[in-house]
Amino acid sequence: MTDSLRDLDRQLERFAKDRDWQQFHSPKNLASALVVEAGELLEHFQWLTEEQSRTLSPEKLEAVGAEVADVLLYLIQLTSAMGIDPIEAARAKLKLNEMKYPVELARGTSKKYDEL
Amino acid sequence: MTDSLRDLDRQLERFAKDRDWQQFHSPKNLASALVVEAGELLEHFQWLTEEQSRTLSPEKLEAVGAEVADVLLYLIQLTSAMGIDPIEAARAKLKLNEMKYPVELARGTSKKYDEL
Amino acid sequence: MTDSLRDLDRQLERFAKDRDWQQFHSPKNLASALVVEAGELLEHFQWLTEEQSRTLSPEKLEAVGAEVADVLLYLIQLTSAMGIDPIEAARAKLKLNEMKYPVELARGTSKKYDEL
Amino acid sequence: MTDSLRDLDRQLERFAKDRDWQQFHSPKNLASALVVEAGELLEHFQWLTEEQSRTLSPEKLEAVGAEVADVLLYLIQLTSAMGIDPIEAARAKLKLNEMKYPVELARGTSKKYDEL
Repeated sequence: MTDSLRDLDRQLERFAKDRDWQQFHSPKNLASALVVEAGELLEHFQWLTEEQSRTLSPEKLEAVGAEVADVLLYLIQLTSAMGIDPIEAARAKLKLNEMKYPVELARGTSKKYDEL
Repeated sequence: MTDSLRDLDRQLERFAKDRDWQQFHSPKNLASALVVEAGELLEHFQWLTEEQSRTLSPEKLEAVGAEVADVLLYLIQLTSAMGIDPIEAARAKLKLNEMKYPVELARGTSKKYDEL
Repeated sequence: MTDSLRDLDRQLERFAKDRDWQQFHSPKNLASALVVEAGELLEHFQWLTEEQSRTLSPEKLEAVGAEVADVLLYLIQLTSAMGIDPIEAARAKLKLNEMKYPVELARGTSKKYDEL
Repeated sequence: MTDSLRDLDRQLERFAKDRDWQQFHSPKNLASALVVEAGELLEHFQWLTEEQSRTLSPEKLEAVGAEVADVLLYLIQLTSAMGIDPIEAARAKLKLNEMKYPVELARGTSKKYDEL
């Protein structure tokens, strides 16, 4: 993990304990909440062109930031509940992706690895 | 940010550059990819009971870890593209949540803040 | 298709034309909107137990109905834009599922077809 | 409802009964499954431009059709389990949308109703 993520993890544990919310925080429920927040994040982009999405107004940027935060907060709670280190998992997946998407085959194409 | 997230950010930038993938990485597309991965994460829980979701097998745990990784990797790429610091955003959101969900009102209930 | 779906399709086409909204209705955008609405639908269940989800209050039922409607409306617009008949697609998929999930192997288990 | 949707509903009930799957089909779980399939639908579009999404190959169109089918099948099962008529819900929502998005205010803009 990292200090910042561990801090957030501790704060989130405290936050949930104070409100007697652990009863609602099964991994199943946390995974659902994460998808719901990811959808709220996408909602800000759904009618924008790709070009517009590259030049958001300050207000839009702030709104998107709040959804990013929600996704990260649930990701931390979910991984904490399951004893998963998200940083280690991400490192391992990036290594795996290097093998699934060798530069010679993947360059310039958005094809999925099983279509290369 | 944190060192680990910054490292992953740099590796992801390099990964995309090597494969000439920045053309596909508009914030709009990255937000879509994030939701898709969040869905793949949820898929591991969709037929499980909340109880079962608290006691996953090692294989299930590993599979879930891979999806957690995918979500985090897209979150890093998305925030990097938009100049958002996910840790700062999360800290700010947690503070806001303390106000939206005061302990006296929120304790023991899963009601949304506008229903308290 | 069916008459009701065709009626809704026509009404939706008229609705979008009146508001000069076809510019926003690429299949890519409609697919995004559909996921966003599906997330709003799931949000109503995220903190409920499976048992509670089987006995919703009239208010909750109405709110869920509104999200179901949103999902269906985008499904109709998406399939209309791509010349897909959702009923025919569903019939074909149900036939395929009978083969992917033979009763003898699938009975009583929630395993995915590639795990049977 | 419509005859076709009622037929599919009956077939799905039979399908689940034969496999002893009703135990997994709480509305909570069905809503999760619906989101997961909506994500698989979006996955086909995530790296495409809006333009490309308007001119899909026959193979892509068929793959998208299969995901559309999955979404519709879960929508039918979910509404059936909750006693909701999806067609009636859609009709009611379309009427409500006419009020939320009056042509004079909504024409040519993708702003949400609370931003008009």
